[in-house]
Amino acid sequence: MKITQSLHRAARMRPHSAAVRCRDRCLTWSAVAQRAPRIAAALRSAGLEIGDRVAVLAMNSDRYTELLYAVPWAGGVIVPLNIRWAAAEIVHALQDCAAKILIVDASFRSLIPELKARAPQVRDILYLDDDAPPSGTTSFEEAIVRAEPVADVERQGDELYAIFYTGGTTGHPKGVMLSHKNALALAWSWLAVNPPGEEPIVHLHVAGLFHLAGAAYVWYTTAAAGTNVMLPKFEAEPVMQAIAEYKVNSVVLIPTMVNMLLAHASFSAYDLSSVRTCIYGGSPIPQSLLLAAMDRLPTWRFIQAYGMTETAGMAVTLASSYHVLEGEMAKKITAAGRASAVCEVRIVGQDDEELPAGRVGEIAIRGDNIMLGYWNNPEATAIALRGGWMHSGDAAWMDEDGFVYIVDRIKDMIVSGGENVYSAEVENAICKHPAVLESAVIGIPDQKWGEIVHAVVVPREGSKIDVQELLTHCRGLIAGYKCPRSIDILCDPLPKTAAGKIAKTVLREPFWLGQERRVH
Amino acid sequence: MKITQSLHRAARMRPHSAAVRCRDRCLTWSAVAQRAPRIAAALRSAGLEIGDRVAVLAMNSDRYTELLYAVPWAGGVIVPLNIRWAAAEIVHALQDCAAKILIVDASFRSLIPELKARAPQVRDILYLDDDAPPSGTTSFEEAIVRAEPVADVERQGDELYAIFYTGGTTGHPKGVMLSHKNALALAWSWLAVNPPGEEPIVHLHVAGLFHLAGAAYVWYTTAAAGTNVMLPKFEAEPVMQAIAEYKVNSVVLIPTMVNMLLAHASFSAYDLSSVRTCIYGGSPIPQSLLLAAMDRLPTWRFIQAYGMTETAGMAVTLASSYHVLEGEMAKKITAAGRASAVCEVRIVGQDDEELPAGRVGEIAIRGDNIMLGYWNNPEATAIALRGGWMHSGDAAWMDEDGFVYIVDRIKDMIVSGGENVYSAEVENAICKHPAVLESAVIGIPDQKWGEIVHAVVVPREGSKIDVQELLTHCRGLIAGYKCPRSIDILCDPLPKTAAGKIAKTVLREPFWLGQERRVH
Repeated sequence: MKITQSLHRAARMRPHSAAVRCRDRCLTWSAVAQRAPRIAAALRSAGLEIGDRVAVLAMNSDRYTELLYAVPWAGGVIVPLNIRWAAAEIVHALQDCAAKILIVDASFRSLIPELKARAPQVRDILYLDDDAPPSGTTSFEEAIVRAEPVADVERQGDELYAIFYTGGTTGHPKGVMLSHKNALALAWSWLAVNPPGEEPIVHLHVAGLFHLAGAAYVWYTTAAAGTNVMLPKFEAEPVMQAIAEYKVNSVVLIPTMVNMLLAHASFSAYDLSSVRTCIYGGSPIPQSLLLAAMDRLPTWRFIQAYGMTETAGMAVTLASSYHVLEGEMAKKITAAGRASAVCEVRIVGQDDEELPAGRVGEIAIRGDNIMLGYWNNPEATAIALRGGWMHSGDAAWMDEDGFVYIVDRIKDMIVSGGENVYSAEVENAICKHPAVLESAVIGIPDQKWGEIVHAVVVPREGSKIDVQELLTHCRGLIAGYKCPRSIDILCDPLPKTAAGKIAKTVLREPFWLGQERRVH
Repeated sequence: MKITQSLHRAARMRPHSAAVRCRDRCLTWSAVAQRAPRIAAALRSAGLEIGDRVAVLAMNSDRYTELLYAVPWAGGVIVPLNIRWAAAEIVHALQDCAAKILIVDASFRSLIPELKARAPQVRDILYLDDDAPPSGTTSFEEAIVRAEPVADVERQGDELYAIFYTGGTTGHPKGVMLSHKNALALAWSWLAVNPPGEEPIVHLHVAGLFHLAGAAYVWYTTAAAGTNVMLPKFEAEPVMQAIAEYKVNSVVLIPTMVNMLLAHASFSAYDLSSVRTCIYGGSPIPQSLLLAAMDRLPTWRFIQAYGMTETAGMAVTLASSYHVLEGEMAKKITAAGRASAVCEVRIVGQDDEELPAGRVGEIAIRGDNIMLGYWNNPEATAIALRGGWMHSGDAAWMDEDGFVYIVDRIKDMIVSGGENVYSAEVENAICKHPAVLESAVIGIPDQKWGEIVHAVVVPREGSKIDVQELLTHCRGLIAGYKCPRSIDILCDPLPKTAAGKIAKTVLREPFWLGQERRVH
């Protein structure tokens, strides 16, 4: 199982089809297969030896897509860096993984002098764009032209393919080591969930390739010999343009983004009917969105994916057939879904014993998509992978049909007077109030109850929130002991992690100064 | 990657669904998951140690299906034996793989004394059926009842899972060693080709589990958490009964078998509309059958699979969307298809160099479904797997879209006066004659031309064949140099191998006595 297998295969199956489109450039599978051995040669010339790390700090592009195959072709380990990181975080990752080569695009040009100075173990910097390379860097395209193609090293199976840093909310990000097997297993599991029919998959990327919501779909699209369409980020109009222009049939868009398309002034100016599959994650799809999509995006089928960097992306999936509002199938709409083809999922208690259906515990996953471990961090690896299962940190229950229902992050669960309160449930209740834009519910220390439920709420623009009225609203939806004991109203957006999640650690911090919070 | 992963997963996903139906018995996934550790314990009690071989000589059944998971659960290697073999062949295989345990069902009861005497290294014989076990054997079900469940040994990846003997036409059958990875990769590649939709896969087995056309679909159906419906063999009426009774939606039936259903007097008495997928192999689907099926089996979609024991089953597949008679897609109807998701396919010349599109050479395959090698036969392994590619022995060409078109077995190609004649092409021409039931075309020695084309033809019941008229018929369809120089008319059916293929070696033998035939 080697990640380059998909490239070799695609180049024979669809040599003249578009492999990747980016701005006005288009590379066919044949071109990618011809460039990969040259890119690999350029990396070798830059000093790459088998197993060396190649860090990439770049916006999504055709060249980034190629690197996901060319780096392993050369025998290297690719390390996609988070584009939202500050310089200090980038430097930390470069040092942590001891990157020998760094590949940077124009967006990060101004950072290069600082990175060179602070991460001196980087021997060579390749500059990915076509403008004049900054001093001390080598032009990527020029290096390729000079290079004599080299043979695929064919690392495979459990050998290290990539390191993806997780956006930890505390401490330094951890480097998740993914093997060739992990990446291919992930790709194949997607083929089973969203099989390419007679028309090739044309997948639109808006998530960064440094994240599994980006990279995993390059693996999938390549395994399907489809087309990757690259956008640097999500913006409603460019997304609609790209869908219409390239007849995109597969997208990863979270519900908020789909809502932004539907709400956009130019929505009806674009033909979005080529889309067959919209993959989303994070939480169940809102019924209102499903209704709206059925009406205004009737060709779109929704698939929910649940996973994490440590599972190389999707581990649990809710098929499109369950995205209905009536009938037997509709009963599963609040689930995250079932185990993908390449893994097993179970719910475990505090002693890692498997819990029966209906009981809330931690989601544990094992299978061929589970990471090798954390880079240079055997302690964290041993804890996360104890007993051979990846411990997700998510609290959930499973029904009799193996569907998983996520209730909360385990560390976000609040234990108040001996009762478990799932912050997500409280947030859902709060967010049903029309004046609420977003909210975060955390446990804060309390002498009598251990913890009490505290809510931080951001009102919608132009709306005002009356705390008493919001509490009454909550009491109508959830049990009294789950309702917030205190509410803060913020004017600014909630603090977010680099991955875009609400940084509850930051919110909790002032309340827990000098105290350690026990996680259950 | 362990084969038992699918069982663990299915037991959580569909605990109360039928895993396997056989006669009046039905086991749920929960029951299979509970029985497997007991069967494994029984095997251990019988002396099984990690890596020991467990041979199975039995007709298809629910218990045989379970053994495909329970033997690896115990750490053993399963060796399914060909049910058509003579005693001497069975003894040879038992000795070759040094089977420690033999599992036999009632169909082979009478053979037990001879096998015991001639294969003394077999330490224990388990008797699979419920009647009184023959002397010197242990009742399978009684052994399970007595056993204390043992934990899954969890062998995986490249570790040996099974040995399947290939029905060689010359010499002894070779033991094809398949790993856990091979079997799972095969299962996943089927999930991508024939993904389970909202209704579970219900797969009808008529091919013996000793053959990949049987066992591979157990792996697939289990990975899909579907239902295996077991018949001991193909008979038209029981097949139609089973489809109607169990709402079978997936079958493996070669075109001849589908024709037998269509021609059966009771065809219209059964509702066969639950079938969504009919998988076939061996040769392209006859247009007449496709037409008839479109009319009379409108829910059936056809998928062609090409593969061999050494590729753990399917390696190349022609999707149902190409099974049409008009339009762009119809151009591929004579292809065997494209590489499955888990492998690469290329066409190589005599020096193993890759040939360009359109040139005839040998099909070579590499990927995760390729066998570990031949048991106890490193020489044959080295030849078959040279350069890391499995050499199929099949002559074919590839088009610009990666579709493979098989022209012949390489050893059946006839070289006459420097021209290649593909026996399959000549046979197709002959078989288009209405009086012909079956035919085999072989090369026989000739002083002037090297080899000349010779045909052996069996007429349909009640038909007579005029040799001159048959030659005229052929000349109307294929070039003169391809037409037979001599024709034998047989009254008996053509000799077949244990796998049901025409035994051309047997037909060639009398012509080549004392001469060695060069294979090109």
